[in-house]
Amino acid sequence: MKKIILDTDPGIDDAMAIFTAMAHPQIELLGLTTTFGNVSVEQATTNALSLVEMAGLDIPVAKGVGTPWVKELNPFPDFVHGVDGFGNVNLPAPKGQPIAQSAAQYIVEQVNACPGEITLVAVGPLGNLAAALQIDPSIAEKVKEVVLMGGVIAADGNVSPVAEANILSDPHAADKVMAAAWSVVIVGLDVTHQVVLNNALFAKIAKENTKVGQFMADAAQFYIDFYSSIRDIDGCYAHDVSAVAYVVDSSMFGTIEGEVCVATDGVAIGQTIMSRFGIPYPLTFWQGRPKQKACMQVDSTKLVALFEDAMTSDYWN
Amino acid sequence: MKKIILDTDPGIDDAMAIFTAMAHPQIELLGLTTTFGNVSVEQATTNALSLVEMAGLDIPVAKGVGTPWVKELNPFPDFVHGVDGFGNVNLPAPKGQPIAQSAAQYIVEQVNACPGEITLVAVGPLGNLAAALQIDPSIAEKVKEVVLMGGVIAADGNVSPVAEANILSDPHAADKVMAAAWSVVIVGLDVTHQVVLNNALFAKIAKENTKVGQFMADAAQFYIDFYSSIRDIDGCYAHDVSAVAYVVDSSMFGTIEGEVCVATDGVAIGQTIMSRFGIPYPLTFWQGRPKQKACMQVDSTKLVALFEDAMTSDYWN
Repeated sequence: MKKIILDTDPGIDDAMAIFTAMAHPQIELLGLTTTFGNVSVEQATTNALSLVEMAGLDIPVAKGVGTPWVKELNPFPDFVHGVDGFGNVNLPAPKGQPIAQSAAQYIVEQVNACPGEITLVAVGPLGNLAAALQIDPSIAEKVKEVVLMGGVIAADGNVSPVAEANILSDPHAADKVMAAAWSVVIVGLDVTHQVVLNNALFAKIAKENTKVGQFMADAAQFYIDFYSSIRDIDGCYAHDVSAVAYVVDSSMFGTIEGEVCVATDGVAIGQTIMSRFGIPYPLTFWQGRPKQKACMQVDSTKLVALFEDAMTSDYWN
Repeated sequence: MKKIILDTDPGIDDAMAIFTAMAHPQIELLGLTTTFGNVSVEQATTNALSLVEMAGLDIPVAKGVGTPWVKELNPFPDFVHGVDGFGNVNLPAPKGQPIAQSAAQYIVEQVNACPGEITLVAVGPLGNLAAALQIDPSIAEKVKEVVLMGGVIAADGNVSPVAEANILSDPHAADKVMAAAWSVVIVGLDVTHQVVLNNALFAKIAKENTKVGQFMADAAQFYIDFYSSIRDIDGCYAHDVSAVAYVVDSSMFGTIEGEVCVATDGVAIGQTIMSRFGIPYPLTFWQGRPKQKACMQVDSTKLVALFEDAMTSDYWN
């Protein structure tokens, strides 16, 4: 069993990732930490509580940061995730409450309690991870691995030709996460744009998962409609769930490694730039940073199967 | 015959480009304009005059800008081109002098004299082209095409993971050139790193070109030694001559197109970022800019043959 804390801004594809983490037999989901991103941190926290309740679980939800570290807060992308973050399905308010600790404090406490055991899976902007590093820098050496959905190395971005949305939302936090002495795995657009989840899959999930399947399919429809309107695909991308898939079975990904800096200003803002060719460049921003990994290839069939299996497993019935 | 003005910072590969332009029967080389880059603008001007004299020609050399527009001047890369710009072959001082006009003024005058006819081939930092646009913005619509060796779209950079040296040397000037309403063709590292010129070729040139062949081979040896020390290639890249090759036969290149912005600060400084997928991004820096071209594929065999043919042709004997 792999212990994870899932840092999230639910978000439709966040819900896919969270449900997959709940259901997968190899994952022990310790808790959810929330952040702004797809929606406000208030909505993200409400949504995380709703998902936990829907699944009938009793795991902690810790509310995290509501704004970026340095740059201004951008409008939330309601055209991607709906005003409610779940494609405007308008769930009833959850009964649960977030725990007293902030997301960052919760991460620090959990990591210190189980040094070497916890993987941080971050699928939103990285403000909570950066705040946790600020509170207690020693967690860098105690976290097992940081697996994040975010960034893009060589493919095209989704908020600019070179930037991915989670990183752009808080580039200074992302740069701090990349610079820290822990192992980061970037599960970014290089791979997530290779994996499409289609209507037929969500119809099957709706039918076979009586607990959360219909909700997931309804929310996914909004997400699919968005992607169909701007990209030539029949479905939606498997963004956030890809990070969970990496934790379960990293062998379905091909990776490269190198030092990473994040552009925090100018036209490249939000870009994750990896120094990956071992060439001694005159520009030395990358020098002295730890080598991080980035996923560049993915076995799309295996990833879709992992999601399908988790969403239709006996766990839900 | 294609009329060109060659804007250059000679530079070993600049010499290859200049000699090729001089010798090629389809090119009418109107003049050389000089800039800082591989060496100081003073050395570049001396070197341009030396090359003209060596070839026995009488074409104007106009001295250009000596510093970037905004950023600081970096040290010249004497480990790439030698202290003298020609691999420390230490040529005697030329007898000629640059013309009275600045490079920018010369470009403005020539372009206005022959509207629609002149291609600007720029193989160094882009300060002269930017200055010419400042002096007379109307030249944008009178230049036939701007073909530049500089930048990189999807391959790795040579001064950072994402930046190419000519663009980094004056990113603000480069951004102005990319934003102007003329047709720019980027002949950058995406293609120039695909074409290797080896010692056997330069030995042949030394033997068959009695006028400038031995000089070219001696200078190239320094350049080849540099590249052999940092990249796994047997020779040097055909950087600057590739831009001349594009003017002669663009069919040997595969191109893409899109709006281009240049990063002028931060870790991405010097990067040429093309919006090339037709996706509506939230970051709108690219909006309203003209679509420019970038070379992504090259027929390496044809390009090497073009250089070899020009350097060993009867023109030199």
